[in-house]
Amino acid sequence: MSKCECKLDVDLGERSYPIYIGAGIYADADYYREHVGGSQVMIVTNETIAPLYLDETAEALSGYEVKSCVLPDGEEYKTLDVLNRIYTALLKGRFSRRSTLIALGGGVIGDMTGFAAATYQRGVDFIQVPTTLLSQVDSSVGGKTGVNHLMGKNMIGAFYQPRLVLADTSTLNTLDDRQLSSGLAEVIKYGLIIDAEFFTWLEKNMDALLARDPVALAYAIQRSCRCKADVVEADEKESGQRALLNLGHTFGHAIETGMGYGEWLHGEAVATGMCMAADMSRRQGWLSAQSCDRIYRLIEQARLPIVPPKALTSERFIELMAVDKKVVDGRLRLVLLKEIGSSLVTDEFEMHNLTETLSQYGS
Amino acid sequence: MSKCECKLDVDLGERSYPIYIGAGIYADADYYREHVGGSQVMIVTNETIAPLYLDETAEALSGYEVKSCVLPDGEEYKTLDVLNRIYTALLKGRFSRRSTLIALGGGVIGDMTGFAAATYQRGVDFIQVPTTLLSQVDSSVGGKTGVNHLMGKNMIGAFYQPRLVLADTSTLNTLDDRQLSSGLAEVIKYGLIIDAEFFTWLEKNMDALLARDPVALAYAIQRSCRCKADVVEADEKESGQRALLNLGHTFGHAIETGMGYGEWLHGEAVATGMCMAADMSRRQGWLSAQSCDRIYRLIEQARLPIVPPKALTSERFIELMAVDKKVVDGRLRLVLLKEIGSSLVTDEFEMHNLTETLSQYGS
Repeated sequence: MSKCECKLDVDLGERSYPIYIGAGIYADADYYREHVGGSQVMIVTNETIAPLYLDETAEALSGYEVKSCVLPDGEEYKTLDVLNRIYTALLKGRFSRRSTLIALGGGVIGDMTGFAAATYQRGVDFIQVPTTLLSQVDSSVGGKTGVNHLMGKNMIGAFYQPRLVLADTSTLNTLDDRQLSSGLAEVIKYGLIIDAEFFTWLEKNMDALLARDPVALAYAIQRSCRCKADVVEADEKESGQRALLNLGHTFGHAIETGMGYGEWLHGEAVATGMCMAADMSRRQGWLSAQSCDRIYRLIEQARLPIVPPKALTSERFIELMAVDKKVVDGRLRLVLLKEIGSSLVTDEFEMHNLTETLSQYGS
Repeated sequence: MSKCECKLDVDLGERSYPIYIGAGIYADADYYREHVGGSQVMIVTNETIAPLYLDETAEALSGYEVKSCVLPDGEEYKTLDVLNRIYTALLKGRFSRRSTLIALGGGVIGDMTGFAAATYQRGVDFIQVPTTLLSQVDSSVGGKTGVNHLMGKNMIGAFYQPRLVLADTSTLNTLDDRQLSSGLAEVIKYGLIIDAEFFTWLEKNMDALLARDPVALAYAIQRSCRCKADVVEADEKESGQRALLNLGHTFGHAIETGMGYGEWLHGEAVATGMCMAADMSRRQGWLSAQSCDRIYRLIEQARLPIVPPKALTSERFIELMAVDKKVVDGRLRLVLLKEIGSSLVTDEFEMHNLTETLSQYGS
């Protein structure tokens, strides 16, 4: 396993698993061998990724009975209907409950494949090979799987842990710039919620990351996964602290839903959502104006938007935020910042600060 | 809670829950009060059950925000598409992740509602009010939830435990005779796999059960749930011993699938499957001919079929059994009997005994 830059263990008791981060590892048989239980492997991927990485992945698994299921590419296909195609492929291939599903692709493929693994015959093994920066730093840790419903994003799903994650930095070379920046939004998020030192590192190394320097990328992926794992290990099912990972997401989901899935990339919406959370935190008297500016600057440096679309009025924002999963018994809970690297989940904020944050952007 | 005949605790650590068994309990607010967490309750039921029991159930929950979702009745509606109607009802009603879903109905409603609860926003609370004998003695314990796929029964699902089960014997008065007998098949199964004394009790009390004597029914339900809980508590995720609960099910599923869902009731197929397992166990030299006869007699006394449909040849049986979930890496595993009250899961049987068992019935 000489190509591996680094390894991280996610510690969840009997559901613990390793994440390997490096260049070229997805095509190396050694990584799979000890994590594939039965003899049947289904690689789930999409039409964009298949021509790039499917053959080499299948070759690395040549000792097994390998089949593949190629889905259309895009968040709009993250539905129950498309999920059903995975089940059909498994049943047609007579896959038993000792099968392994491999998700080869970005977040959509990871979420759907993970949910298929969680629910095919009530649960089979699952390996993730995330091919976007966003999925490498986000879906690699946390076990969230699922599909969208017409009426809301990620409304159907399960918590389900992979057996293994292979985050290959070489797959990022085929990622377009907008997708790379979208991944950097989540990377910045980890600095903001619990790791001020990492935030400072990002300020110094953003250009190297944008230039896809493999060493800088591997470091950022590892540190992001470590941050997320620290939060998740303490709170696997999102009852309390885990909600910190939603910084920027309540605003962000409202943007994604309000504009229609796919118009804004997830990371772009989260980036803007983090700026809004920072602005609101400043109005609460928690975050200094100077820290707020550092946040805007780093997000801009990562080539991400810092203001929401004009089309979304503050009334529409409130409406969209009210169906968000973070609403507990009618009270809106938000993740806000005390300082860079220090955050909290709260429903105790001044409502006028929320409306002021929203209305400064509206048309 | 004076109406309660008896209570049983299913001990699964932090997912433990009580089963109350008695007459009239489903309409008693006291049972729900301590098990409903949030303020929103969705009662999922079907068109047959709704006119009989929905109003009284909703009334018992009058302190909460109660909505209902009425699905068509029948195994053919246990699909992803119909499941999606539950999600839509929840999203239209703006149900949060602190909601409670109540399954009011038989096994299909229980399985679908449980799966909806397992997967709506990655998991909300779930209460079962089973209204058929089969669901009272089977789905009340074990946490199996899911839907069918066109290519196989229960192929999509999750393990998910309810917070509370209310098994009301008064709801059995509206059950037709064939459904009652179908439930008795599973009751007999518990005696066969681990409880010889209960099997003897059933030989003496079958007439009282068929006459719907509430005391006999409550006893049989409690003892059945206790048997199942003993097996499940030892093996929650079905890696080993839990498979004993599948006695008669591999043959039975083949009958159900081969004849088309709904032609044979589940319990009827299982009853015949148990006779076939008994026959095969006798051929293996394990079960005495006398015990075999006692099994046939009790199943007949419960007004259940003891031979499979003529339309299914032994070749078709083998074909149908090969996609069953109990196949591990290509080897067929069956539950067979050592004696009444003593069973084992094995792939070590003489193939000619299987083919002889199958071919004695074929047309």
